[in-house]
Amino acid sequence: MIAVDWGTSSFRAYRLNAAGVVLDTRSSPRGILTVADGGFAAVLREEVGAWLEAERLMLLSGMIGSRQGWHEAPYVPCPAGEPEIRAALVRLDFDWPGEVWLASGLSCRAHDVPDVMRGEEVQILGALDVLDDEDGLVCLPGTHSKWVRVRGRRIVGFETHMTGEAFAVFRQHSILGRLMPPSGQEADPEDAAFAAGLARARTAGGLLHHLFGARSLGLMGDLPAAALPAYLSGLLIGHELAATAAIAGPVHLIGSEALTRRYARALELSGRAAKPLAPDLAAAGLHLLSQGL
Amino acid sequence: MIAVDWGTSSFRAYRLNAAGVVLDTRSSPRGILTVADGGFAAVLREEVGAWLEAERLMLLSGMIGSRQGWHEAPYVPCPAGEPEIRAALVRLDFDWPGEVWLASGLSCRAHDVPDVMRGEEVQILGALDVLDDEDGLVCLPGTHSKWVRVRGRRIVGFETHMTGEAFAVFRQHSILGRLMPPSGQEADPEDAAFAAGLARARTAGGLLHHLFGARSLGLMGDLPAAALPAYLSGLLIGHELAATAAIAGPVHLIGSEALTRRYARALELSGRAAKPLAPDLAAAGLHLLSQGL
Repeated sequence: MIAVDWGTSSFRAYRLNAAGVVLDTRSSPRGILTVADGGFAAVLREEVGAWLEAERLMLLSGMIGSRQGWHEAPYVPCPAGEPEIRAALVRLDFDWPGEVWLASGLSCRAHDVPDVMRGEEVQILGALDVLDDEDGLVCLPGTHSKWVRVRGRRIVGFETHMTGEAFAVFRQHSILGRLMPPSGQEADPEDAAFAAGLARARTAGGLLHHLFGARSLGLMGDLPAAALPAYLSGLLIGHELAATAAIAGPVHLIGSEALTRRYARALELSGRAAKPLAPDLAAAGLHLLSQGL
Repeated sequence: MIAVDWGTSSFRAYRLNAAGVVLDTRSSPRGILTVADGGFAAVLREEVGAWLEAERLMLLSGMIGSRQGWHEAPYVPCPAGEPEIRAALVRLDFDWPGEVWLASGLSCRAHDVPDVMRGEEVQILGALDVLDDEDGLVCLPGTHSKWVRVRGRRIVGFETHMTGEAFAVFRQHSILGRLMPPSGQEADPEDAAFAAGLARARTAGGLLHHLFGARSLGLMGDLPAAALPAYLSGLLIGHELAATAAIAGPVHLIGSEALTRRYARALELSGRAAKPLAPDLAAAGLHLLSQGL
């Protein structure tokens, strides 16, 4: 089968054998935002065309199922596990002897406020065997970090934190960026300034006040310009961790190696246990969903 | 005398008699960011030229004293009141028989993190007679809101919250803006959505999570697009108020009429007393500083 994780800014495809072993992979920066409406089938054929002759089943997950993607798939409400997510798969038209299915995202609601995800739920399915023993808490750091509670092989609820996007907009579009060096000239984000930002997030004052420190520390010479991005990153991740501190237990991490390492360090500095999970979980989750189709 | 409050995005000038009564005012959008380096004297002459012949003393405050302004004046450390701020006045060169003086900003330090202000300290001086009886807490809402503690006619400390700038960058540059209407088509910022954002800020979850609700509430149809800016404003002001809730006592407000009204409503909805102060306090503060020059 072919498994495709098609997000906002990237495209990743896997060819899997019947046991779910990855035989081949492709990845490209052709996220959905780079594809004009109506162009998704053509891009898909360009990316995985070499595999189409031999395969007869393809599953897709991620923002490709959003309003800005190929087809808007309605969210499945939590709690939801493998059966609910499989039952909500949407069949797509694609000129091919095989079948193409699209995974819906998930929604939940807490304090009368809804929350949504698209794609992360499939990665969680791919990690269920690991999460099975211990009812688990999973963090998927990124532009919109997801904190997901899993119980009895079902996603029971989750929270989105705009940590990565907040970092980007404050660095690129606020006064905080004025003192910072160009991208690529910043200090190692795991350095002392990152730890200082994390520690600051544990004090009183609130994020909106702490953010201004990423300017005044530079202005008054307390931190060199090259360290300010790492300090800002520490502040934001620190506030994300503080907001999720009430959820006990080890935090399973799913994400890129760099982000996973940064969050693991932040969790450990906050006295919490971090358990990084394997990469390519989207392929494992889509393979699981394909069983019984 | 002539009093000038010259900020990042606006220029305001006052002609005062010896008793400090405002005889005439001028205001323009020629904030320091619109003036090329070396051009400040010429702009000043264009703006207040009509008053120069009859006057012999001019005082300036605000970001005109910053690195991006006419002349960088060093910050005066807190605690500081009228004598310390007057002693730090900087004389500027200006081709005129009179004297031109520039007020320095203030700095303070808490938890080893510095904070700075330029211009707000002069507005506080202008309100000292009102703040005198009750050792006061003053909030100056804006792009960078200032929360200032006054005791015995001295500013003993303050905190900056990036509330206004956070609103602007999230609305203009983040995914939150995508669902929002163009500026001018939003709902009244004092409406029910503003109160809902304020209430949300009082719950657990943290600002980075609450921000995502300003997307998901729109996405799932819980809030109409026109209400999302007011909800975001309520969230951010609510987090600012939550972070300052430990400071007891009524909150004196200094700012534009619209912002003062919005903060007064937010404070009252949070069970705190708001006391709006008079406008044009910069003129009163600069007049006070001029005494004894």
